Amino acid sequence: MHGTIVDWAKWRFGLKGSPSRPPRRGGVRNSNSKIEVLKKKANKMKKLQVVFIAIFMVTVLTTGAQEKFGKGQITQIGLVVNDIDEASKKWAAILGFDKVPEVIITDEYEKANTQFEGKPTEARAKLAFFRLENLTIELIEPVGKKSTWYKHLKKHGEGFHHIAFGVEGMEQNIAYLENKGGKLVQKGDFTGGSYSYVDMPNLGVIIELLTSTQK
Amino acid sequence: MHGTIVDWAKWRFGLKGSPSRPPRRGGVRNSNSKIEVLKKKANKMKKLQVVFIAIFMVTVLTTGAQEKFGKGQITQIGLVVNDIDEASKKWAAILGFDKVPEVIITDEYEKANTQFEGKPTEARAKLAFFRLENLTIELIEPVGKKSTWYKHLKKHGEGFHHIAFGVEGMEQNIAYLENKGGKLVQKGDFTGGSYSYVDMPNLGVIIELLTSTQK
Repeated sequence: MHGTIVDWAKWRFGLKGSPSRPPRRGGVRNSNSKIEVLKKKANKMKKLQVVFIAIFMVTVLTTGAQEKFGKGQITQIGLVVNDIDEASKKWAAILGFDKVPEVIITDEYEKANTQFEGKPTEARAKLAFFRLENLTIELIEPVGKKSTWYKHLKKHGEGFHHIAFGVEGMEQNIAYLENKGGKLVQKGDFTGGSYSYVDMPNLGVIIELLTSTQK
Repeated sequence: MHGTIVDWAKWRFGLKGSPSRPPRRGGVRNSNSKIEVLKKKANKMKKLQVVFIAIFMVTVLTTGAQEKFGKGQITQIGLVVNDIDEASKKWAAILGFDKVPEVIITDEYEKANTQFEGKPTEARAKLAFFRLENLTIELIEPVGKKSTWYKHLKKHGEGFHHIAFGVEGMEQNIAYLENKGGKLVQKGDFTGGSYSYVDMPNLGVIIELLTSTQK
């Protein structure tokens, strides 16, 4: 009985249903030279490697061809509110949080370098974070007027402001969204990272890009 | 040397640093009656059980006192759009999806039993789902006018419509949100489950409740 290359591969890679010893290939056992046998085996291994690499590449190309934006995750939903203490209490009661999260305030201009519509701004915000199982709800109360937070709250009232994605490389991701119809409306720094809000008028949403300076 | 009750507990429950044999307790070895010894040991075990139950209950009460709403997860972000095919293409391009998701249409009234503001409605919607790593973006194009989708789109334009939580028991969760200022605006069925939209005007968001009829 002569084994097929599939049998040989099964034996070589120890797959299920593999014969316990190398199957005979036509003529191999009758070859005059042991070197010839080894050369043929090496050739077959090379062919197999090519087949496996081809299968691997096809798999990669069909399943992971395009990298997902922001690793395919929305990390935060940002909501603007009139009064962060009031809103935090209401959200805590609904979400079932025993404790209302601590309210923090964004850094002043000297540290945050906040830019709104291309110009430096002194505007800041009070923030509270509800960390859910799969993402964070961020409540934002504007402090001062020259910010996307204040503008959005005045125009639309309390509610959704943005969805956030964690990205690597701020400038290229701003360019990526601008290339798809986006417009950078605000950016700034915080301890541990930077953010940018890119308005996507053709989608009706603001996307926040978050980068981390920490590894 | 007399052991403490802590030593005894360490030995009894095989904890680290436990003595290799039961430590002597004051007077126990000198007791006249073996029954007395056993009674005392039994009493001490009872006391220990009470202590452990107390510790367990305090832990439960402080860490898991309040159950998180919707298991602490936002399962979907819903966006209303003017044209689902156009919007799907744009979102696919931004999110890095190779394929635009299939567009489906909600069931007709006979199957969906759609109720809008307390009345049956023939209105439906075209839906497209972008399944991200941690939640789903749902695009919604209203079909017909008597729905929260159409009303929201007309009032606010394209963009955020709701955040969704998976819950068990629709009626009690509607009541839970109504008790916190919510108002049921629309509900209906789909293959495998039901949904309700509860407007939360005091938060500026619509919360969708999703129940599954499947185990």
